[in-house]
Amino acid sequence: MSDPRSVEALKAALQRLPGIGPKSAQRMAFHLLERDRDGARQISDAISNALAKVTHCIRCNNFSELELCSICASRSRDPNQLCVVETPADHEAIEQAAVYRGMYFVLMGHLSPLDDIGPESLGVRQLLALIERETIQEVILATNLTVEGQATADFLLDLLQRKEVTVTRLARGLPMGGELEYMDPGTLNQAFQDRRSV
Amino acid sequence: MSDPRSVEALKAALQRLPGIGPKSAQRMAFHLLERDRDGARQISDAISNALAKVTHCIRCNNFSELELCSICASRSRDPNQLCVVETPADHEAIEQAAVYRGMYFVLMGHLSPLDDIGPESLGVRQLLALIERETIQEVILATNLTVEGQATADFLLDLLQRKEVTVTRLARGLPMGGELEYMDPGTLNQAFQDRRSV
Repeated sequence: MSDPRSVEALKAALQRLPGIGPKSAQRMAFHLLERDRDGARQISDAISNALAKVTHCIRCNNFSELELCSICASRSRDPNQLCVVETPADHEAIEQAAVYRGMYFVLMGHLSPLDDIGPESLGVRQLLALIERETIQEVILATNLTVEGQATADFLLDLLQRKEVTVTRLARGLPMGGELEYMDPGTLNQAFQDRRSV
Repeated sequence: MSDPRSVEALKAALQRLPGIGPKSAQRMAFHLLERDRDGARQISDAISNALAKVTHCIRCNNFSELELCSICASRSRDPNQLCVVETPADHEAIEQAAVYRGMYFVLMGHLSPLDDIGPESLGVRQLLALIERETIQEVILATNLTVEGQATADFLLDLLQRKEVTVTRLARGLPMGGELEYMDPGTLNQAFQDRRSV
């Protein structure tokens, strides 16, 4: 505690970033104050600006500065398909791959009872209302293939089977560039089960 | 680029933190906006507060909110000893060990020509003036035992040998809890050379 109070406060604040402990926070505080005051100002301003402007798209729940995000407002997307993803990062990965022209719903997380994240915080009610209201024919469950992602997909599948929509999941198997000797048994198992005739 | 502009700006800003790349910045931005808006506000405020208040102690060059930091202003420290460290973190580590009651000088880095950090940015002139001006009898070079830290110490030693002060370095050898089988040859070599009769 030989640092001035405002430096200590900065170090404490930086530890609220995910994955940042006391030592990293100390290194960051030193860097910002000693080597990159412009960067520090940029971070501070970007945070307050984003806090002021960013809210959720009322339709797809993704981050948006407007009531409707650019994809939901677009007329060139297929309104019959709805792809359900966990996070804006997943959403962005799919958009960058440019393989999908339908709409999205962003859960903003996965079921995680320990972190107090249940169906309510994932906007499940909003998702179901959306499916009731619109002409969606296919719901693509594109949650991660982690334990939590799978549990979330299973939970949603259970709810969606009572609706009149086709529910699909992304194909599971070997990733591009994957080498068999390094694949886990689960992936190999899935790749064998879902093998295709060519 | 499907995220709103202010989210993109936040992700770009967070990448100015040391050790943070695009993926970590994305995860942080999501966490701040979706899970911890209070934390986000705290970080933004702590940065602007620290930028406004933190400057350098005019004597020891450490971070300080006042002209003189608390140690330099203290009357209970030994004014005859001056310990030269690289960063406020090193300074804090020594203070926490509570083994030293003298004064400090904080270089705020080490010599690193590639990063454009030369003697000027390390406040070497300020250090020499301090030694001229005050009654310092011993200068303890406590830079890190990295290549850069050693080079910085060698550079300072060269300058200080022309002054009427004793210059010392911290002892080198095995750290507490160190196991010989895991020590590098350099450390073992030093431990043998500086062995003591008991």
